[in-house]
Amino acid sequence: MALVVQKFGGTSLADADRIRHVAERVTENHTAGNRVVVVVSAMGETTDELIGLAGNVSERAHPREMDMLLTAGERISMALVAMAIEDYGVPAVSFTGSQAGILTTSVHGKAEIVDITPFRVRDALDEGKVVIVAGFQGVSPDSKDVTTLGRGGSDATAVALAAALGANVCEIYTDVDGIFTADPRLVAAARKLDEISYEEMLEYAGAGAGVLMPRSVEYALRHDIPIHVRSSFHDGVGTWVKEETMEEPAVRGVAHDDAETKLTIHGMPDRPGVAAALFEEIAEAGVNVDMIIQNVSIDGFGDISFTVPAEAADAARKAAEGAAQAVGASSVDVDDDLAKISVVGAGMKTETGIAARVFRILSDAGINIEMISTSAIRVSCLVRAADAENAVRALHEGFVEVVS
Amino acid sequence: MALVVQKFGGTSLADADRIRHVAERVTENHTAGNRVVVVVSAMGETTDELIGLAGNVSERAHPREMDMLLTAGERISMALVAMAIEDYGVPAVSFTGSQAGILTTSVHGKAEIVDITPFRVRDALDEGKVVIVAGFQGVSPDSKDVTTLGRGGSDATAVALAAALGANVCEIYTDVDGIFTADPRLVAAARKLDEISYEEMLEYAGAGAGVLMPRSVEYALRHDIPIHVRSSFHDGVGTWVKEETMEEPAVRGVAHDDAETKLTIHGMPDRPGVAAALFEEIAEAGVNVDMIIQNVSIDGFGDISFTVPAEAADAARKAAEGAAQAVGASSVDVDDDLAKISVVGAGMKTETGIAARVFRILSDAGINIEMISTSAIRVSCLVRAADAENAVRALHEGFVEVVS
Repeated sequence: MALVVQKFGGTSLADADRIRHVAERVTENHTAGNRVVVVVSAMGETTDELIGLAGNVSERAHPREMDMLLTAGERISMALVAMAIEDYGVPAVSFTGSQAGILTTSVHGKAEIVDITPFRVRDALDEGKVVIVAGFQGVSPDSKDVTTLGRGGSDATAVALAAALGANVCEIYTDVDGIFTADPRLVAAARKLDEISYEEMLEYAGAGAGVLMPRSVEYALRHDIPIHVRSSFHDGVGTWVKEETMEEPAVRGVAHDDAETKLTIHGMPDRPGVAAALFEEIAEAGVNVDMIIQNVSIDGFGDISFTVPAEAADAARKAAEGAAQAVGASSVDVDDDLAKISVVGAGMKTETGIAARVFRILSDAGINIEMISTSAIRVSCLVRAADAENAVRALHEGFVEVVS
Repeated sequence: MALVVQKFGGTSLADADRIRHVAERVTENHTAGNRVVVVVSAMGETTDELIGLAGNVSERAHPREMDMLLTAGERISMALVAMAIEDYGVPAVSFTGSQAGILTTSVHGKAEIVDITPFRVRDALDEGKVVIVAGFQGVSPDSKDVTTLGRGGSDATAVALAAALGANVCEIYTDVDGIFTADPRLVAAARKLDEISYEEMLEYAGAGAGVLMPRSVEYALRHDIPIHVRSSFHDGVGTWVKEETMEEPAVRGVAHDDAETKLTIHGMPDRPGVAAALFEEIAEAGVNVDMIIQNVSIDGFGDISFTVPAEAADAARKAAEGAAQAVGASSVDVDDDLAKISVVGAGMKTETGIAARVFRILSDAGINIEMISTSAIRVSCLVRAADAENAVRALHEGFVEVVS
């Protein structure tokens, strides 16, 4: 008897019909003899509607109350899913994040799961019930307050709960068929991957391939919980994210991320400690820096460029301007008309020359590379936004289509 | 420094503008130096919308999940009210029923408050915060599940919390100006009462005068918490419900209740224990019987009639039919085309002949009385629904208008 955690997102729960459809799928799994835990997001646009309400009532940010407000969303969907399942004659019970023992840090809006104490979930499973758990939310043992986990939070709930319960698999139901070799909206020849390793998925997700957030993959990797990313609209097999895969191609897929912003600080004095001071300032603003490039210094002054996620651009700019003033740099430029294109594959570890091939393919396509960063299994290039589609297509053709 | 509990219903919180208006009123009270606890219902039609959603998803009753669903309503309004208050520069914090320590029985949908342990509310007040508490909801210490208190539940939360905190007053904000001598929609001459005693309010509420539910008044009576029922739309004084009142008129007001159903069991054998068996059956079905009348027996068989709240009519009929069959009665009739008209006043205790005057006034108005029930400070008559308005007007004219 397997223990399965199934996560359904807001699109899969957008209305009463879809909720009943989800209930039917869950029920089938339970009837087949599995122990089933269902993690749900808020229905459809609920979260956006609640954020809109808050915006109409208040002009300021109230992180604690915003979390109190938003957690109403999953509360509604989990109760409805439980009712729909019980209508199929299967006993079900819903738990809030707090009731399910999802313990988090006390940072409202982007709390991290620190522990899971799923006593009530286990008891309910032992009683033969399907358990529905509110995704995206938890409770801080320090503040005793309800918290939310931020973007992709329901996936994190599902994977972490699967790890805590020792589940056999964590199924992430979504509105696409699985993980693709490239964004099918950009590349007609993109194909669904049957499998991808945790390590590759981590790089791929971090490079902008949607569906899964890196933090969920990290959980799965650390606890070796296979994730099955699949469609909520049909029964077909999706993509398995797991420890070992049958083959290790040099390039598993091509990801792109058009939400990268580049900041350039001009006229940085070329003396020890200046760069350190800058990036300490940026780090204190809570911004993660992705790529960094430092230009050759002329007459003791040089330029330094770095990229940050677009959502952190304002915070990064403020910090950079502060630092620039402190060290006597001349100005800060912001450029958000860029995209980062990455090729990811575990085979890179053993196959040499992948980076050179990337540069050659982009060069042959007439695409200029602004910045480069690499890991053991990833090569990323920053290009002009207008070149992004061509770059993805050329790299997909050069690496993925040739071997398939 | 007074401690004030203020309760705002769904109409007062129907949209962003009204929520900001409520926040402004609360803030004024806080700025005036009071410690303020705000109890809120769900916004406008939220509860009905959630019930509708449940109806679309599921065909059966799921009491636990329904409570989980409905409690999302107050969660939304309390977070929004807290945000709006903080926008005025006043620190505020919202608590769910569970966080506020509202401990209840475990009967979903109509739980009773058994204890209140408002540690977090007290701490937050001590920190100078306005505290917003979700009305209508609590938590069962036995089942660890969230419960709702049923109709009028937010008032019960407010009064019980006022008692637990030793508040100076519990203000119930509503869409009318206070408690009236009769329903102003029926009686043009009806006037707002400046004050009414707990005891009178208890009878008046039980007799169908809206605004307050008897259970809330009982709490106030038991703990001697003055209730101020007032409009949420203006600053005018409403009606004070309290221990002592300046005067004790024979009739404080005329209430009517058109949600009474009469059941009649025909051909009941006239032998000891038959009536007891019937009403035991009714009680086991959880139905409260209001008036009872037993007709003279002919040939060893008689009729028995009793009234129940309209919402309990189906349950009462089933129980009555079972009992009728068991004792060999012939049939059960149901009549819901009726209204109960009551005159209430503490002065009745010392002034005799009030019941006789009620019967005379109704008789002079050509209205037939079907059943009668009385208490020390109330006389109630069951009349045809078509006669209800005339009966209220005649009694109001005869008792209230003459003395005003």
